[in-house]
Amino acid sequence: MRKVRVVLWGLGAMGRGIAELLSRREGVEIVGACDINPALAGRALHEALGLPAPGGKAVPVTPDIATALEGTPVDCCVIATDSFVKGVFPKVREVLFRGVNVLTIAEEMSWPWASEPELAREMDGLAKRYGVSVLGTGINPGMMMDLLAVCLSGVMQEVRHVRCERVNSLSPFGETVMQEQGIGISPEDFARGARDGSLAGHVGFRESAAMIARALGMEIGRFEAQMAPIITDRDRKSPHGFAPKGSVAGVSMTAQAWDESGEIIDLVHPQQIEPESAGVHTGDYITLEGTPPVHMAVQPEVDGGAGTVAMACNVLPFLVAARPGLLSMLDLPVPRCVMGDYRDIAFGRDENGE
Amino acid sequence: MRKVRVVLWGLGAMGRGIAELLSRREGVEIVGACDINPALAGRALHEALGLPAPGGKAVPVTPDIATALEGTPVDCCVIATDSFVKGVFPKVREVLFRGVNVLTIAEEMSWPWASEPELAREMDGLAKRYGVSVLGTGINPGMMMDLLAVCLSGVMQEVRHVRCERVNSLSPFGETVMQEQGIGISPEDFARGARDGSLAGHVGFRESAAMIARALGMEIGRFEAQMAPIITDRDRKSPHGFAPKGSVAGVSMTAQAWDESGEIIDLVHPQQIEPESAGVHTGDYITLEGTPPVHMAVQPEVDGGAGTVAMACNVLPFLVAARPGLLSMLDLPVPRCVMGDYRDIAFGRDENGE
Repeated sequence: MRKVRVVLWGLGAMGRGIAELLSRREGVEIVGACDINPALAGRALHEALGLPAPGGKAVPVTPDIATALEGTPVDCCVIATDSFVKGVFPKVREVLFRGVNVLTIAEEMSWPWASEPELAREMDGLAKRYGVSVLGTGINPGMMMDLLAVCLSGVMQEVRHVRCERVNSLSPFGETVMQEQGIGISPEDFARGARDGSLAGHVGFRESAAMIARALGMEIGRFEAQMAPIITDRDRKSPHGFAPKGSVAGVSMTAQAWDESGEIIDLVHPQQIEPESAGVHTGDYITLEGTPPVHMAVQPEVDGGAGTVAMACNVLPFLVAARPGLLSMLDLPVPRCVMGDYRDIAFGRDENGE
Repeated sequence: MRKVRVVLWGLGAMGRGIAELLSRREGVEIVGACDINPALAGRALHEALGLPAPGGKAVPVTPDIATALEGTPVDCCVIATDSFVKGVFPKVREVLFRGVNVLTIAEEMSWPWASEPELAREMDGLAKRYGVSVLGTGINPGMMMDLLAVCLSGVMQEVRHVRCERVNSLSPFGETVMQEQGIGISPEDFARGARDGSLAGHVGFRESAAMIARALGMEIGRFEAQMAPIITDRDRKSPHGFAPKGSVAGVSMTAQAWDESGEIIDLVHPQQIEPESAGVHTGDYITLEGTPPVHMAVQPEVDGGAGTVAMACNVLPFLVAARPGLLSMLDLPVPRCVMGDYRDIAFGRDENGE
């Protein structure tokens, strides 16, 4: 049986990680790659990324997706280029037109009905017309502050309140993230960046809240999100960032959702460099109030980069097998580390050997 | 649209809990109930269980399942009568013959291919012939020592070792459990009971290990399980149990699975009355070694009784919607506390309103 065929669109840090992990997995092969970076154009993917040479012919990196997708049937295109539905939508459409499933790590795509209901409707229609599926996933949104809480709620008879807290370190990240999060800038510059939108902070709270509410049968009447600087009272230095005393060492993101009875969802997500130097212990925490109550802690937090790469690669064969349409993680089986053959999942072989 | 129709087979502690929770849920109704207890025969279910009177006509408890299932189309029969595949198999068959989906909390049914591959094949064939599905679920096996570990592994690129530990209290349980677990008996009586099989301890390790291995693509070459008494060094008293100093206050169950490289799964499950009196803190703990590693703790442990009732009721609408055949929790979407209308899930309405 042929392998599951994947085309990668976007070879930044996440796209490269996905390429690297897929090349170690069984029953799956990368048959095309697309990136606009001129330094990659025309090069063989494995050479450009320092991967072992593939068994078959080398895969060239092309600047246009049409070339990357042509010549062989493709089961899934992984788009790792954008954070927002608006930005990724034209790319999704271009892939769907060719009858290829789309997996993306664009944060807003984890619940695209929240930010762009019209575009969501269009993607769903297109996907169904071409008999393929579209899905957004990642570590957050996509897992640690939404799907994992949903999964834990499965042991409950009633949930009154959901609290998800993700306290993570930005120290492993590179210069782009340091700039995006405003590491080392003054509180005044932070306030300005927050006002004019140049500092976005975490993208995904609206999506996480909507996914939780939909899964549990709650109705969100009001939603609010806040972004505040984490001002450090001492110098902090990470491999790619430096925050002198009195400057911004990170961003504290919070959000709350209410129904008519009161607050039902509380999301807390402070991200900073060198949290331990300020006595902050990283971790993922979920508290579900109800019957029976559930208090979960994962310490330290699940690594965001490695985790997003893993989620994308682990969800991929389930997406290939899924029904057509615009889907969410709520529609797929429980995620899992797929160390077996991708074909068993993507092309279907059940427990009973059929 | 009509409600999801359920028949209950077995009205012990778990069956009663399921009846009680389903009667509070939306879009689902109990249309039949079967139990061999003469004290229940012929009585109205809501009266016998102290539930509010149903909107429609009262449901009688009947001693035979044929009567309980007849007269109206039924979407799901919940069987809460047995722990082992062999015991529940004739009941499952009787329901499948009538074209009704089966949900059971029989522990071995969480992964019936482990203990009874032949019976599993037969159930799968029957289910497919009649176009319905069969599934076993529960809190353990079914969630805390298997499915939750699987779900957490979704954030990982590679898993080298899985350790699940469930440290729970038996204090909330009644006299039956006290006897089954040997609470208060001497170490000698415990040894005798373990030898002759009259003390079974926890049922489900083989199933949990097989589910984890299958999900992650591991191959179990060797499996071993152990059962040891927890001898108390002080008197312990719970509402329904008493263990004097030197007697059995609980059972420590352990199991390990190996592939050719070494141990891959380690299951640890000590259950006892009044663990806090001996300085033991209850909780569910999952440690996944690999990339990235995951260390999870749920403290205190998820209540076993309330949790099993919740799992059964929460999985029910997904089972009604599932493809025909003998299924496991690996085949269904992520579990969740279903506080919305059961019909949205069981009879299908997707995020896109279709």
